[in-house]
Amino acid sequence: MEAAPPAMPELADDTTSIPSSRGEGDQSHHPRTLIRAIVGAIDAHDKKRVVVGGWVRTGRRSSSLLAFLELNDGSCQQNLQAVVKGQVYGDLRRLTPTGTSVLLEGVLEKLDGAKHKQLIELQVERVIDVGEVDARVYPLPKTKHTLEGLRDIPHLRPRTDTIAAVARIRSELAFATHSFFRGEGFLHVHTPIISTSDCEGAGEMFQVTTLFSQADKVEKELKENGAAPSEADIEAAKLVVREKGDAIARLKAAKVAGKQEISAAVLELEKAKEIVSSLEAERLRLRPGIQRKDDGTISFENDFFKRPAYLTVSGQLQAETYACALGKVYTFGPTFRAEKSHTSRHLAEFWMVEPEMAFADLQYDMDCAERYVKHLCRWILDHCREDMEFMVNHHDRTAIERLELVSETPFERISYTKAIKILEDADKEFENKVEWGIDLASEHERYLTDVVFEKPVIVYDYPKEIKAFYMRLNDDQKTVAAMDVLVPKVGELIGGSQREERLDILKQRLIDGGLALGPYEWYLDLRRFATVKHSGFGMGFERMLLFATGLDNIRDIIPFPRCPGKADL
Amino acid sequence: MEAAPPAMPELADDTTSIPSSRGEGDQSHHPRTLIRAIVGAIDAHDKKRVVVGGWVRTGRRSSSLLAFLELNDGSCQQNLQAVVKGQVYGDLRRLTPTGTSVLLEGVLEKLDGAKHKQLIELQVERVIDVGEVDARVYPLPKTKHTLEGLRDIPHLRPRTDTIAAVARIRSELAFATHSFFRGEGFLHVHTPIISTSDCEGAGEMFQVTTLFSQADKVEKELKENGAAPSEADIEAAKLVVREKGDAIARLKAAKVAGKQEISAAVLELEKAKEIVSSLEAERLRLRPGIQRKDDGTISFENDFFKRPAYLTVSGQLQAETYACALGKVYTFGPTFRAEKSHTSRHLAEFWMVEPEMAFADLQYDMDCAERYVKHLCRWILDHCREDMEFMVNHHDRTAIERLELVSETPFERISYTKAIKILEDADKEFENKVEWGIDLASEHERYLTDVVFEKPVIVYDYPKEIKAFYMRLNDDQKTVAAMDVLVPKVGELIGGSQREERLDILKQRLIDGGLALGPYEWYLDLRRFATVKHSGFGMGFERMLLFATGLDNIRDIIPFPRCPGKADL
Repeated sequence: MEAAPPAMPELADDTTSIPSSRGEGDQSHHPRTLIRAIVGAIDAHDKKRVVVGGWVRTGRRSSSLLAFLELNDGSCQQNLQAVVKGQVYGDLRRLTPTGTSVLLEGVLEKLDGAKHKQLIELQVERVIDVGEVDARVYPLPKTKHTLEGLRDIPHLRPRTDTIAAVARIRSELAFATHSFFRGEGFLHVHTPIISTSDCEGAGEMFQVTTLFSQADKVEKELKENGAAPSEADIEAAKLVVREKGDAIARLKAAKVAGKQEISAAVLELEKAKEIVSSLEAERLRLRPGIQRKDDGTISFENDFFKRPAYLTVSGQLQAETYACALGKVYTFGPTFRAEKSHTSRHLAEFWMVEPEMAFADLQYDMDCAERYVKHLCRWILDHCREDMEFMVNHHDRTAIERLELVSETPFERISYTKAIKILEDADKEFENKVEWGIDLASEHERYLTDVVFEKPVIVYDYPKEIKAFYMRLNDDQKTVAAMDVLVPKVGELIGGSQREERLDILKQRLIDGGLALGPYEWYLDLRRFATVKHSGFGMGFERMLLFATGLDNIRDIIPFPRCPGKADL
Repeated sequence: MEAAPPAMPELADDTTSIPSSRGEGDQSHHPRTLIRAIVGAIDAHDKKRVVVGGWVRTGRRSSSLLAFLELNDGSCQQNLQAVVKGQVYGDLRRLTPTGTSVLLEGVLEKLDGAKHKQLIELQVERVIDVGEVDARVYPLPKTKHTLEGLRDIPHLRPRTDTIAAVARIRSELAFATHSFFRGEGFLHVHTPIISTSDCEGAGEMFQVTTLFSQADKVEKELKENGAAPSEADIEAAKLVVREKGDAIARLKAAKVAGKQEISAAVLELEKAKEIVSSLEAERLRLRPGIQRKDDGTISFENDFFKRPAYLTVSGQLQAETYACALGKVYTFGPTFRAEKSHTSRHLAEFWMVEPEMAFADLQYDMDCAERYVKHLCRWILDHCREDMEFMVNHHDRTAIERLELVSETPFERISYTKAIKILEDADKEFENKVEWGIDLASEHERYLTDVVFEKPVIVYDYPKEIKAFYMRLNDDQKTVAAMDVLVPKVGELIGGSQREERLDILKQRLIDGGLALGPYEWYLDLRRFATVKHSGFGMGFERMLLFATGLDNIRDIIPFPRCPGKADL
């Protein structure tokens, strides 16, 4: 294995911790050196005494006198070999099982590259801590795991090379996102997760509620106190009413009872009826959790926010309020869809990057999107080379080539109308019919990126009918200033648009879309008061990771995937 | 106003956008220069032609021939003065109302600092775009607003100086967080928002569900199809049962009916009863949204995740799975509490920073927390000086002093036992009784930070009874390796601990806490297989912002506050 210095940030030396004033008999503090720091600067670490902590990827004993541990500490893909002598640690057998955690102190020694696979190794002088693994029951034995199988043990799978590599690439991509937007003068805005706005029915939404826990709490109290009238209590009271009624009927039928007798019986009936009403009211009062309104729909008056609240499907509309005040902002947070999709491309919870820019038209939007994607690709090549080589060797031979292509090639830009023309003229049968007005299917997108242009393509000016109400109507009255960035392998990576800044047209678009104006009054205010031309886009963060790593299933790209029927941990 | 260069990142020059191949008749693209770039490098911008976009903070006309616009574009606190001549734009009156948005092209001219308040101004040559404001109805007139009043217009309030300053400081603090942890070799991990784990009942939780929308959908379908029996249908059927019963009673009472007649009547009654049952069953079948189990609690079999799912109260437990595989990780995301607190310190949705470190004891944890807080304070002083001066002038005279104190002074570290001793010996009456075993109240915390030590204090080794099950039991069997970082003004800023890494003790702590082991099996696995000593802490991001800005209400610190009964936008 080549020990090229992984191009990662200058690492604050973990060994220089601030002197501590704590000292009331506590065990001494072990400063730890990360393997990334060691393999990134071999000469500087030669002969150095260090403490290293990590997990044994492979361990072997040459005899009871010597053990070799391939140690990984998560800081990089590379392992560090640690050599432990029998005289240093008596029970070498404990150290070697795959997965074992060890904290070791020793001296680093540079090796002769011509003779050894490793370029530096740790001569262990003290075994500080060991976390054992019983290989007979450990769910992650040394043998090959499938990515699919690993999904059942989300709490252990980051201990594998692939998931660890994804975690490092994901972390770098997140930082690259912040560094890009900050460098361009954007402010990071935290748009809300719980929202009472609907971003134009972008999809099925999850509702956020405390009604169930309230209802269950009430149910529990009722049971414990025996305070609430049961259905049986109410039925019994109703029976009394019926009996009283029957009694009156009998009195009347028998024609022997006097007026007074009948009046008394009627009074009794009234009392019995009152008891039923009060029991029913009491039961309702004590079960306030989930009530329905007169029209049969659920009432949310008693819910936490006193009205229905949902998990956001996009931070765009809220980000617009900040863009229309501060110019350039972006949001990077979780978004949600309650769609019952079981595909390898859909998650119920995923992360989105959404910049929003004032004084920006569609062209500026496309320029920004292209710069951003190129920045991400370049960043991964510069900062995750070792992990990308691992992905190439184990998952996708073309992953690095793809990043290089995208980071260096200007994106093709064509109008939707032109894209349709190209597809109509194509020497290929598509499964989905091609005609002006359709939404492009992924076979169409792939044809454009992979066959016609062989590079990323931005398609712009889509028919207004297939796009959202907030996208700016073009002068042709038929299209809107929308754009999609299509890339090889994943297709649509980014969707964006110039937003409709003209109050009257925006209102009309809402009306045409069958949407009520009321809930959008705040959004209309952005146009009513000091409107500005503005644009933005959204990038699915996991889409970008699929594109970068070459993995096929989005559930391997996010640490804790949420899908229909599945939300482990 | 002094035009000190605001210490912000090197700004990618907005004027250099990638050449675009779009050109099918679209309006030309206006590259825009940020005011921050101009006032940060006045000499370099003298005589330069630029396009500037922003919002008029104050506008005045000296006559119909000249208008002066104080322009703010959100990139910094400072305004840029733009001078518009009547011959450049005919209707100067349109430009001057406070709040108006303008996109201007012109030439920058450096001014003589001795004679002018401004050091550079824009001589406008073209007014490209104007977004008008009708001052009579604009909710943000020039007069002073209260922060409280602004909370009712969350979509407009970032247009004010204070909320804009908070937005910039918040954005920088977020970046400072990423840069700190990345610099120390941490990986950024996205822990899940929707969770089926409870972080030890850290608080009331919001539930995430699709049952209500399913129920409402069913209700709607039923209504449209007329397919479902209504309550009235069922009542009517029950009435028939009652009538049939009465009829039998009458037959029997009259003693004239034969056996056959009575049998027939009984048969009719049975049929009527069957109709009621089938109607009720049909109604239940068609209303599958919200069902209760036999014990009266709600059933979630038909919910999206097929079981109750909640919004996370902390990413810690999930972050531990990554720390126990990759060493050092942190999560920075939204967390939620469904508590009905209406205080100025509580939100239902807020952001938390949670690092988690393998091979780390409590001392390392305290060291890391102290370095992090110092880094944040230093960062704000270095990168948000202008906004901090604004906060000092308008909100909290001591805000900068406080940041300097914390960034430079080593934090005091005392054990909980010692803290109690100090409080017991204090020459002061506390409202809350002081004795070993109590949770420190904020009056106690303030006494330690503001009176005794006059600097941040880390209190460690708390009684196990008042802390969570996952905190490591100390050898005294009475305390756990927990720590809180207390700072002036806000009190507890950070809470953390070394985690219990010993399987048996952790199990016992769960049992002692009355918690079932089952839901924590995955968490126990981290100790069962290759356990490592590990530590972590959590910092409420809004708490840090309150501390930094000196503002008093947490609702002014987050863009879109969520509180009981309130979730605007």
